[in-house]
Amino acid sequence: MSGEAPRAGEFELIRRYFAPLAATHPAGLGLEDDAAVFSLPPGREIVVTTDTMVEGVHYPVGEAADFVARKLLRVNLSDLAAMGARPEVYFLNTAWPPGLDENWIAAFAAGLAADQEEFGIALAGGDTVATSGPAVFTLSALGSVEAGRALRRGGAAVGDLVYVSGTIGDGTLGLEVALSRKLEGPSLRQLEELHRRYRLPDPRLALGAALASSGGGTDVHAAADVSDGLVADLGHICAASRAGALIRAEAVPLSDAARAALARNPSLLARLVTGGDDYELVFTLAPPAAERIEALAERLGTPVTRIGEIVPGAAVSVVDGAGQELPLAVAGYRHR
Amino acid sequence: MSGEAPRAGEFELIRRYFAPLAATHPAGLGLEDDAAVFSLPPGREIVVTTDTMVEGVHYPVGEAADFVARKLLRVNLSDLAAMGARPEVYFLNTAWPPGLDENWIAAFAAGLAADQEEFGIALAGGDTVATSGPAVFTLSALGSVEAGRALRRGGAAVGDLVYVSGTIGDGTLGLEVALSRKLEGPSLRQLEELHRRYRLPDPRLALGAALASSGGGTDVHAAADVSDGLVADLGHICAASRAGALIRAEAVPLSDAARAALARNPSLLARLVTGGDDYELVFTLAPPAAERIEALAERLGTPVTRIGEIVPGAAVSVVDGAGQELPLAVAGYRHR
Repeated sequence: MSGEAPRAGEFELIRRYFAPLAATHPAGLGLEDDAAVFSLPPGREIVVTTDTMVEGVHYPVGEAADFVARKLLRVNLSDLAAMGARPEVYFLNTAWPPGLDENWIAAFAAGLAADQEEFGIALAGGDTVATSGPAVFTLSALGSVEAGRALRRGGAAVGDLVYVSGTIGDGTLGLEVALSRKLEGPSLRQLEELHRRYRLPDPRLALGAALASSGGGTDVHAAADVSDGLVADLGHICAASRAGALIRAEAVPLSDAARAALARNPSLLARLVTGGDDYELVFTLAPPAAERIEALAERLGTPVTRIGEIVPGAAVSVVDGAGQELPLAVAGYRHR
Repeated sequence: MSGEAPRAGEFELIRRYFAPLAATHPAGLGLEDDAAVFSLPPGREIVVTTDTMVEGVHYPVGEAADFVARKLLRVNLSDLAAMGARPEVYFLNTAWPPGLDENWIAAFAAGLAADQEEFGIALAGGDTVATSGPAVFTLSALGSVEAGRALRRGGAAVGDLVYVSGTIGDGTLGLEVALSRKLEGPSLRQLEELHRRYRLPDPRLALGAALASSGGGTDVHAAADVSDGLVADLGHICAASRAGALIRAEAVPLSDAARAALARNPSLLARLVTGGDDYELVFTLAPPAAERIEALAERLGTPVTRIGEIVPGAAVSVVDGAGQELPLAVAGYRHR
């Protein structure tokens, strides 16, 4: 009933596994203080995002610890990417279940160490507690963006073109592979790649930053990352922008693996455009900016594809090659 | 296994109970975006702290929802106070257990609404997920402080005087009342007051800010809040400062309720100085600054009491009126 008595070895766990993650950035003050202190150069704003993952809800019981840690960091980085922000520092709150093996914690920290280096971010604080239930992890990431340049969801205008980065639907197929270990159509190598995409998303930080910076500038009207599913996240943009969207299913970029699965089971299409965990960016821009933004993405080596338009209304509709509207699960339409 | 499908009504819960908490500050962007955007006036730094509370670990099962919420916010505010920071915005991550009553969530949000107003802070983001285990709440608070002025743990010097605010030991006695509903000595009204102090700490924000500002200026060498217990938190200061501390038990300020309990059971003394949840400030300063800081605290109406000195070594010792060292549980000595 009290915060006074961390379980034996808690401070030692922090010292052994987490303090080294805070050693590369001054903000964490070596995890020796009550809080972190952090400053930004003049003219930059702070961007803050936070996500929670629960064992057995957001990842399968038995998932490798380093993948749990890296996905947790990466889904937050994807939120920063969606705002056009540069990663700065992060905070980690862990509620460990009873009897958790110390090797698991060591692997968890090693996963963070690897990704910290890759993405240029460092631990700056957090909290470590015990729980009688499943493990619960909260990671909060701070980024920075040039003042006034953050990409937002609310700026889409009727007539805007809708783009996505990368390929769509691999996350939900990867989840299927994780759960059932099989999926008709893709090769074994393709199945492994789908599984990897689900377990270890690639946040589109370079693209997001470019879209927000003077390169993309005011061309990009709205952006979000595809975490809940393309239709749902575009729906968030539409809700914030008081508009609708029309997506051409044939234009939605798919991986070879997703194409192979779809060839075997055409009814998968609705699931590809509504499934979550792709961590691509979806964004809108006025037609005259299309050429500039496509050239910018090409320079970054990040594929982007035009998939539809912003239209009057409040719904996201997906139409097939014959112009027929695809029936979608209700989740795709939900606005908050 | 996926973040794609929040349980039915999750968006509606956010809209109904949490979006209003974000309405008073622009940083949260109405909870409509992937992240919050936040800027500070030039010359100020960001202070970030985060704490996690687990049902049945940090508060009793059956505790009133508004008290859970307010304590969660206040323990974070106490960390900001310990750094001398002014509260700005906070982020809330909730993992709700199955079958949790919506009235509980409504009361939780109402508790936050009351304290937001009292302490001048607003919700700016978060995450809402489901768990199969006990409720887990993470709150992360952002504050600001004049650049370079944050109070730290690491600056105590041998010869410094050690002060605490308010009274010590009420938190641990209040926990006893919460668990057993009784404690020998205090009156019924005093028992209620101890219980209230445990359930609803008062973060020392005004004192912390004054100690960090030009009023306290460079006079204060080190500070922490008393969350793990006076001896443990002063131990954190000592560890960060590579020094020890000597505390005179008779000087430690006690409430009338604690005095009444101690009169009945003198062996409680060790527990009062090692028990957690007081959320007072402990700080050190050079002797010439004592008069200035005492006058400053008096102007704020916040009692502060000199309880000992920083000495060579690495241990925190507590001596009684006869100069005998008080035997303490090992937790009090632990350095991380």
